[in-house]
Amino acid sequence: MDEAIFEFLHMEIVNHVYSTAKKDEQDLCISQLESLGFRVGQSLVERFTRDWPRYKDELDTMKFICKDFWMAVYKKQVDNLRTNHMGVYVLQDNRFRLLVQLSSGKQYLEHSPRYLALSCGIIRGALSNLGINCVVTAEVSAMPSCKFQIQIPR
Amino acid sequence: MDEAIFEFLHMEIVNHVYSTAKKDEQDLCISQLESLGFRVGQSLVERFTRDWPRYKDELDTMKFICKDFWMAVYKKQVDNLRTNHMGVYVLQDNRFRLLVQLSSGKQYLEHSPRYLALSCGIIRGALSNLGINCVVTAEVSAMPSCKFQIQIPR
Repeated sequence: MDEAIFEFLHMEIVNHVYSTAKKDEQDLCISQLESLGFRVGQSLVERFTRDWPRYKDELDTMKFICKDFWMAVYKKQVDNLRTNHMGVYVLQDNRFRLLVQLSSGKQYLEHSPRYLALSCGIIRGALSNLGINCVVTAEVSAMPSCKFQIQIPR
Repeated sequence: MDEAIFEFLHMEIVNHVYSTAKKDEQDLCISQLESLGFRVGQSLVERFTRDWPRYKDELDTMKFICKDFWMAVYKKQVDNLRTNHMGVYVLQDNRFRLLVQLSSGKQYLEHSPRYLALSCGIIRGALSNLGINCVVTAEVSAMPSCKFQIQIPR
């Protein structure tokens, strides 16, 4: 039920942000959702890392995001983590919780960035509070699967 | 953790709605939050009442809201339910989940309506999908305790 509240609330936030934006401000919506998520990610880490172990390096921190953090927020672990060992990490989730409820119709695929922006922010906020500043982007090729790319400037 | 996401997300929605509103539109914020909550409440009931029993009358439905529904959304039951048997119900929660995280400072008491608007909407949306149209308002006398008043037009 709590899961459902997160899903429904997320959906309504996206709708709200888009429906209140002016026509020429649509580009702003993604960044508003991302900022909102950023603060949620920060708060989550602030509240919870007291109980979590410290991470010895960047890769270790990413593994924490893929396992414990993802499980806590999205009720499953990330399915695949890849890195180029030069500051780029790709997290693949084959059944992303906030996409599952959407139909796999083409109009949703087209609008998928708006359903991933808040989650990009959550990841960036969480990592920021774990000492890693980065840029997070997301892409969907086939619903409800998606990839988050984390870029850490060197 | 899931609880925390709901709380943090709620807090950020309230901040977002107020920070994006123009000065002369502050009155709109409450109704925007209420509408957003209304749709969340509707969705919750749509998804969950399949598993829940039918309610034989209005009072029975209110008891469901105070027990199962409140437990699912707010992690506790309502502490007190009163009715005048003429369509007015007052639900008292002595430790309301979305107020607990706020400080008990005076500035929060003053702003408490903005932290209760979404929940008023959730209750109204849930009841609407259970066949009861009503008006829901909230008041706080001492944080984090609050009362929701449900008025059903006769």
